[in-house]
Amino acid sequence: MSGGYKDVPALNGAAYNEESCRPVREVLNIVGNKWSILVVSLLEDGTRRFSELQRNVDGISQRMLTRTLRELERNGLLTRTVVPTVPPSVYYALTPLGKTLLVHAKELAHWARQNHPKMLQAQQDFDARD
Amino acid sequence: MSGGYKDVPALNGAAYNEESCRPVREVLNIVGNKWSILVVSLLEDGTRRFSELQRNVDGISQRMLTRTLRELERNGLLTRTVVPTVPPSVYYALTPLGKTLLVHAKELAHWARQNHPKMLQAQQDFDARD
Repeated sequence: MSGGYKDVPALNGAAYNEESCRPVREVLNIVGNKWSILVVSLLEDGTRRFSELQRNVDGISQRMLTRTLRELERNGLLTRTVVPTVPPSVYYALTPLGKTLLVHAKELAHWARQNHPKMLQAQQDFDARD
Repeated sequence: MSGGYKDVPALNGAAYNEESCRPVREVLNIVGNKWSILVVSLLEDGTRRFSELQRNVDGISQRMLTRTLRELERNGLLTRTVVPTVPPSVYYALTPLGKTLLVHAKELAHWARQNHPKMLQAQQDFDARD
């Protein structure tokens, strides 16, 4: 049976061992969550204020946005600039590294938008079977 | 100042309003986390047993793997097949929809592997400044 479960070779230890899996896991801890992906996507067109991001990442709390932005900044994906107005204005922008992530974040967001109806249908079918 | 915060146009309401953001958020709730991305990546070469996945997604608990697989199945991204051996064997494979996600999951995993050193360096610099 081609493609069946009996024909599948064992997982290649070299490709999935501890060393090669750990970086992926650590990086995905930071960028592999919906808030990071949405925030990075919103910074596509340039610099944004904290309040703009909060308004446009629908459903995010102030605390979670602060935490997400700080983690992205700490990992070299965005810069934070404080402009000494009264009150101070805080701006965020992607770094060159952040821009390389943007490509993938956008693709994943596009995939999500495109396949949402199929996933809703699958959920209904699954719940009806269960 | 080109590219500065003053030149950036306002976020386009049509692109980021409630309607267009909700599907992305809902889908990323499911696929936008490290475990889903790692599990989907491991199913690239075909069907896998539960125990194989657990061995190769380093750091995942049995409970979290069960939950991740069930969510992916419920959303039409993978199939679960029980073979009536003693004890029963359970196999997982990507659906056609899951395979379209795989492309992006792999790219993100590849990006992660490639940029891990830069992110570690950025973390050190950030923590030294703070």
